[in-house]
Amino acid sequence: MLGQMMNQPLLISGLLKHAERHHGDREIVTRRVEGDLHRYTYRDLARRARQLANALAALGVNPTQRVGTLAWNTHRHMELYYGASGSGMILHTLNPRLHPDQLVWIADNAGDQVLCFDLTFLPLVEATAARYATVKHFVLMTDRAHMPSDSKIPNLLCYEELIDAASEAYDWPQMDENAASSLCYTSGTTGNPKGVLYSHRSTVLHSFGAVTPDALNLSSSDAVLPVVPMFHVNAWGLPYSACLVGAKVVFPGPALDGKSLYELFEAEGVTVSAGVPTVWQGLLAHTDSQGVKFSTMKRTVIGGSACPPAMLRAFEIDYGVQVLHAWGMTEMSPLGTVCTLKTRAETLPLEDRLAIQAKQGRAIFGVDMKIVDPDGKELPWDGTSSGELLVRGPWVLGSYFNREGNDPLRFDSAGLGWFPTGDVATIDADGFMHITDRTKDVIKSGGEWISSIDIENIAMGHRDVAMAACIAVHHPKWDERPLLVVVRKPGSTIGKDALLAYFDGKIAKWWLPDDVVFVDAIPLGATGKMQKNKLREQFADHLLPTISE
Amino acid sequence: MLGQMMNQPLLISGLLKHAERHHGDREIVTRRVEGDLHRYTYRDLARRARQLANALAALGVNPTQRVGTLAWNTHRHMELYYGASGSGMILHTLNPRLHPDQLVWIADNAGDQVLCFDLTFLPLVEATAARYATVKHFVLMTDRAHMPSDSKIPNLLCYEELIDAASEAYDWPQMDENAASSLCYTSGTTGNPKGVLYSHRSTVLHSFGAVTPDALNLSSSDAVLPVVPMFHVNAWGLPYSACLVGAKVVFPGPALDGKSLYELFEAEGVTVSAGVPTVWQGLLAHTDSQGVKFSTMKRTVIGGSACPPAMLRAFEIDYGVQVLHAWGMTEMSPLGTVCTLKTRAETLPLEDRLAIQAKQGRAIFGVDMKIVDPDGKELPWDGTSSGELLVRGPWVLGSYFNREGNDPLRFDSAGLGWFPTGDVATIDADGFMHITDRTKDVIKSGGEWISSIDIENIAMGHRDVAMAACIAVHHPKWDERPLLVVVRKPGSTIGKDALLAYFDGKIAKWWLPDDVVFVDAIPLGATGKMQKNKLREQFADHLLPTISE
Repeated sequence: MLGQMMNQPLLISGLLKHAERHHGDREIVTRRVEGDLHRYTYRDLARRARQLANALAALGVNPTQRVGTLAWNTHRHMELYYGASGSGMILHTLNPRLHPDQLVWIADNAGDQVLCFDLTFLPLVEATAARYATVKHFVLMTDRAHMPSDSKIPNLLCYEELIDAASEAYDWPQMDENAASSLCYTSGTTGNPKGVLYSHRSTVLHSFGAVTPDALNLSSSDAVLPVVPMFHVNAWGLPYSACLVGAKVVFPGPALDGKSLYELFEAEGVTVSAGVPTVWQGLLAHTDSQGVKFSTMKRTVIGGSACPPAMLRAFEIDYGVQVLHAWGMTEMSPLGTVCTLKTRAETLPLEDRLAIQAKQGRAIFGVDMKIVDPDGKELPWDGTSSGELLVRGPWVLGSYFNREGNDPLRFDSAGLGWFPTGDVATIDADGFMHITDRTKDVIKSGGEWISSIDIENIAMGHRDVAMAACIAVHHPKWDERPLLVVVRKPGSTIGKDALLAYFDGKIAKWWLPDDVVFVDAIPLGATGKMQKNKLREQFADHLLPTISE
Repeated sequence: MLGQMMNQPLLISGLLKHAERHHGDREIVTRRVEGDLHRYTYRDLARRARQLANALAALGVNPTQRVGTLAWNTHRHMELYYGASGSGMILHTLNPRLHPDQLVWIADNAGDQVLCFDLTFLPLVEATAARYATVKHFVLMTDRAHMPSDSKIPNLLCYEELIDAASEAYDWPQMDENAASSLCYTSGTTGNPKGVLYSHRSTVLHSFGAVTPDALNLSSSDAVLPVVPMFHVNAWGLPYSACLVGAKVVFPGPALDGKSLYELFEAEGVTVSAGVPTVWQGLLAHTDSQGVKFSTMKRTVIGGSACPPAMLRAFEIDYGVQVLHAWGMTEMSPLGTVCTLKTRAETLPLEDRLAIQAKQGRAIFGVDMKIVDPDGKELPWDGTSSGELLVRGPWVLGSYFNREGNDPLRFDSAGLGWFPTGDVATIDADGFMHITDRTKDVIKSGGEWISSIDIENIAMGHRDVAMAACIAVHHPKWDERPLLVVVRKPGSTIGKDALLAYFDGKIAKWWLPDDVVFVDAIPLGATGKMQKNKLREQFADHLLPTISE
């Protein structure tokens, strides 16, 4: 017997319609790629998204076809979010920091029909335009005045002209809420990138989960500035969540340096922001050097990689800005956990509170998680047992887009599928999850696990160390043992023994690296992460001095 | 093309599983019907809900069959919420304040297989037990020590014994999220009660909407005390929302007087409560007379009927408790609007803020609303145009349960169905909705509408008036004209002319009632509302002195 409530699908267009009807005059402010500040309202956004839907249809793009973007965080990109997905097309955000070969491969794998891109990326697109097999239209996201007089791209279209020529009348179609809405590829460290195909349903449910008070706590009173790129898991869903609550949105465009961000925060009364630690490093360097504080900023979401303890302290203590340490993945839309304290922790001494906030946090309702041993058996939530982290929920990936041998899920005895995150974590009795490593990076020594991240964090605390990576190297007795790969700070001549002595008392004796090698550089990927797989290849035959023969 | 995220249904059992796993030691405190305070955790709730699911199955109750309850707000009632719905049965909450004949009619229309009831209602059930055609099992919600030694109900079962005898092992079934989960009848003023059949999906989505910062703003840090009964639209969904966020829950049981409530608020650190104005009247009478304040209470949800301005002022100004004026219907799960201020209103002078807060509020994301004229044409959001209020959304009723001629929705030109609320309202430019009347009560005079509520509110402001109802009476020229029906305060001898003079300057001249009649009493319904339909029958032939012939 079915319930007798309205059968109303959860659609991305519903988010926009809500913002238009109930928060029509709320502002969206953008630092444009052209340099100036642009300012309009949700009502304008909705109108132009309808025009865009008409314009894309006029180009011959049909529902379910992919619309690629290479773009910064701007109002135009947000128009594409709603104009494309709302009309049943699939928005495909491309990461401009990838290698051009990878971009071409991804656009081809996605089958993009259109590529919309910012002025910044004109040279990149000009260099690769001929290689996009499926792209029929190239759209430069600017006005006529900024169009190049002579481009190598044939029939290059002007975004503002397309909008101006299109009717404002458009009825967002009703469709299956499970229809695909948007596509984002993960930049994995091995193999080809993998596409994650979100649905309208997963996007709307994720937005609901994101705005709850224990997650990002977003309301109509907030002014949100997403520093995290819209090409990186949809700016953690903020362009959707903002519509759900009618928050003011402030887009930084391409100006992500500390000074530009700070000025925008202050000028527009930003209350909440979100980004990766490296961005905040730049921001705090600016505020520290200028001796300035934040006058409206209440909290900041930090994710992408672990928030360094010093940054947590700086925001919380020096600046009075609440840190929402968060964790997720492209495969999770992305939010999985947010580190919001439970009631009992609110009265703890500062240091104890900060120790909890250094964890990745508690699961948002909608996401369930567990840690398992190598046999798949669930491990206890005691804060010390560490195991592979598995997740499930309506905004978690079921399978990858357009990919062979596609069965990422693991099924439990109840027949429920879990997505293996590739992270190694502990979960404490209060449900706070703490990532200790990646499954492929953890060092399996004599059946026990050594966290490569813990060893790296200690090494990087040494004043002579610029960067450090800890990788597993084969050992005949222990199977694997840790090798520490180090880039010295300029001018430093520190040696192996001095560095290893620094670990004394900081970790268990058997975690101590068996050897240290000094290198000029450690290879980094497109998102700034150390490519340990390359190091593992490079040091595959490294002979540990601890091997006794 | 469908998205490729996990296909995971939104189920009521998912709310409980989340609370059990992520907030297992959070407390649920109940003032039991037996008199004492009972205290346990979400982990206990989940365990006993599983036992209950096994116990109900052992009684032969199958999925989709109805489990009736006649019960106060207690932990046992919450166990039934999850044990019955979670296992695929349909929870049917009955309102014990209804007339016994109505109760029997409703249980029969619903086809209840089991009836679970509190000690309080033993006499009521004993008097009617033989008349329930479909009920196979009667379960008294108490322990063996409180069971009657000799009951007229054959085979009366003891709730605690059923639980104790059942296994704790139970896997909540996966099912269609559109499956029916729970049933609640509206006590309409005309015709038979109408059943609203909620689904798992509508319940979970409503919970998401309810906890958002602009709605009830519920978090794991809250301790919530639902005064609104669990037999009245599922206590406005709070037993579900509380699980979603892991809030502490405090149940008042049958003790709803001001003193008992106040003591529970203080003893258990309640931060948020919810109820109808009459309950708060009792609470404020107690705190006023004792000269006490609330030490933990931050906000209170007031709905069911309009919050009187004096109550709003008392909470906000005298007690520093934020009032969340809310509006909804049984047909809406029930939340439609909550009066949370927008940013620009936060800096308004107090009186202007209070004027906004006297409105029923803004639509929660998920609910859309509009006001229409008699031809169905949408009216502007200008704060003055008033029309019939229509709503839609995934937690709004599509059709009534087990009812002939069942097509309540109105369809717009886009083919979308809207539920006519029966309310007359204005909506201002910021989206704040204000109910001015019921469509059946509004007085249609010469094609224009006169708000019966406005006239009643003015009349009730007169110190000689105990109660006042304004109804339409036939008029040959104007079609309808207002008649004011008044109960004088004891000792008063006020007459028609003096009372009508009191309206001078308070309303437009043509709104002035054409006549006043004084009566000893105005009939009230089961939920305390004036039964104006009975007055309309009584005064159907009333000859207005303004008819000139």
